Amino acid sequence: MTAPNVAEFAALLADVRKRIDARLVEWLRPRVSAATEISEEVGMAAAAVQDLALRGGKRMRAALVAAGFGDRSWPSVCEPAMMAVELLQTYLLIHDDWMDDDPVRRGGPSVHVSLRDKLGTRTLGDAAAILAGDLASGYAQAALLETDLPPDRVLRAARAFARTQVDVVTGQLAEMRGARRTGPLPSVETIHALKTASYTVTGPLLLGATLAGADDARCAELERFGRPLGIAFQLRDDLLGVFGDPSATGKPIWNDIRQGKRTTLVTELRGDARAEAVLERAFGKVDASQADLEAVVRVMDESGARGRVEARIRELCDEARRVLDAMSPTMTEEGRAWLDGAIAALGERSA
Amino acid sequence: MTAPNVAEFAALLADVRKRIDARLVEWLRPRVSAATEISEEVGMAAAAVQDLALRGGKRMRAALVAAGFGDRSWPSVCEPAMMAVELLQTYLLIHDDWMDDDPVRRGGPSVHVSLRDKLGTRTLGDAAAILAGDLASGYAQAALLETDLPPDRVLRAARAFARTQVDVVTGQLAEMRGARRTGPLPSVETIHALKTASYTVTGPLLLGATLAGADDARCAELERFGRPLGIAFQLRDDLLGVFGDPSATGKPIWNDIRQGKRTTLVTELRGDARAEAVLERAFGKVDASQADLEAVVRVMDESGARGRVEARIRELCDEARRVLDAMSPTMTEEGRAWLDGAIAALGERSA
Repeated sequence: MTAPNVAEFAALLADVRKRIDARLVEWLRPRVSAATEISEEVGMAAAAVQDLALRGGKRMRAALVAAGFGDRSWPSVCEPAMMAVELLQTYLLIHDDWMDDDPVRRGGPSVHVSLRDKLGTRTLGDAAAILAGDLASGYAQAALLETDLPPDRVLRAARAFARTQVDVVTGQLAEMRGARRTGPLPSVETIHALKTASYTVTGPLLLGATLAGADDARCAELERFGRPLGIAFQLRDDLLGVFGDPSATGKPIWNDIRQGKRTTLVTELRGDARAEAVLERAFGKVDASQADLEAVVRVMDESGARGRVEARIRELCDEARRVLDAMSPTMTEEGRAWLDGAIAALGERSA
Repeated sequence: MTAPNVAEFAALLADVRKRIDARLVEWLRPRVSAATEISEEVGMAAAAVQDLALRGGKRMRAALVAAGFGDRSWPSVCEPAMMAVELLQTYLLIHDDWMDDDPVRRGGPSVHVSLRDKLGTRTLGDAAAILAGDLASGYAQAALLETDLPPDRVLRAARAFARTQVDVVTGQLAEMRGARRTGPLPSVETIHALKTASYTVTGPLLLGATLAGADDARCAELERFGRPLGIAFQLRDDLLGVFGDPSATGKPIWNDIRQGKRTTLVTELRGDARAEAVLERAFGKVDASQADLEAVVRVMDESGARGRVEARIRELCDEARRVLDAMSPTMTEEGRAWLDGAIAALGERSA
């Protein structure tokens, strides 16, 4: 990839972030007010959605809507769809953090933790958190459908959005494992494609493309581009969860290990008896000791697992680049530059 | 209301049920197959959605889509929207039963109870149930967007559908009460309008109307009609939860009392010291004795609370009828007959 394209995407991201943060503030404010007028509890849930949606977030998904749209006229035209992908992310994070009982998100308390505190009991807080997620889901749909473009384009975008939601939920279910089950699991990359690539890369790109009136062939190209890049994004996430800087990522370090998440770093240790023994002492143990966790981190590095995941990220980014190079020439110059820059921003990021 | 219209709506309901049950079977089958190919766990969640969607259900909401559409040409044109309202109901029931920890729904185990059993732990089952609800939500959106009509109509219907979702979730939150809160709560009827009238009556009517190309004035009329009728539906539900026949309703009797639900029957007892004392012994107590529960049921009857709720249902049905009588003359004859028949079917039902 070329350095100018990396800078182009970074500039797009900065512009998108500024606009979308402002637009979300403006869009959510009257909704939180209306909710608060109904009752304090409704207001708390709506405010929890607002707080999480506005608290940080790189707006990478929103920027990918512009990249899929492929034209500098994206502001205002694409903003409702951008809000929609960010609100979809908010909805998914709320439900996901409750499922994993993760206490921290984007450097603050996760929604279920905050609502347990505000409502006074765990049962009430958990129920309110599920409903807050459901509210964010309704908001996301409503935002997208405000798009001011010909109805056939908005309708195609809404269809892509619904499919994205089905895919991401399917991916989250594919990660689960029944207590008594022993049969084969889906491959980690199949799960990543459904669970992450769908709503992080492919979904936003398709929203932008359908709003731009792209034909089915272009949409198919973007799906072939988005899948490897989305998987690379998830692998990078897995690496950052073990080797990253929590102050940059906003997430506690080593949680994946404590929670027993079957990341690629873990599957790469399989078959190495010494490494597996080290892993076993901390894997899936919420109260694992610092020393045991550090030993796992070391063995993930020394066994070559980390290096193999890095190599796989490079392969996936190369695959995305090959798809991009082969894209039909009707692709705009901006679109091409943004997609090229996105490869570095998603695959090579440090936060 | 006229007896012929009651029969008309009953005939519509029977026709809708037959078609929608068949259409849901056909629509869900390939989705459950695809889910099962990914993993057994994904298949379990998709099958849970399918089972609940197909297990009973009167399809009253689907029939109201046809009533809002107002024309005998509803089959095939309205079927995707009808599936959507039934799948929305499935999604809401799954999350709601988990929140209330209700073990039974439509005469079978609720989804979280069934998934706890299938997946082997409570934590896994609960997470899978929330995701199964989320899956049903994605399915509902996808189904609606398959509607084969001009895009502007489908888009208006999708907007009404998103608003319905926001309203119903808002209503569920409005029913919650923080542990340390003592201030005023929203009125029970405000909650019913948001929580029940939205997705049971107004939402389905607006879907049908927008698909028929209705103007904003007609949509506003239908909202004014749907709100009192939806509240009446909820009041009837509350009465059936105490005085109904569980073999007809498919729900365990007296659960609302055990769970401490603030139904209108309960608020109607307030201020009557003797009645309140009787209520106190069973209200919100999951292990309340049969004798204490029977005493509450008796006092709800003898104190006049039951009679006052019945009277309020009659008032609300009359209000809906007045709105219907005043509707602009562009309303079709079928539409008018179905809406009139719906008043009896929703307000006066015994199951």
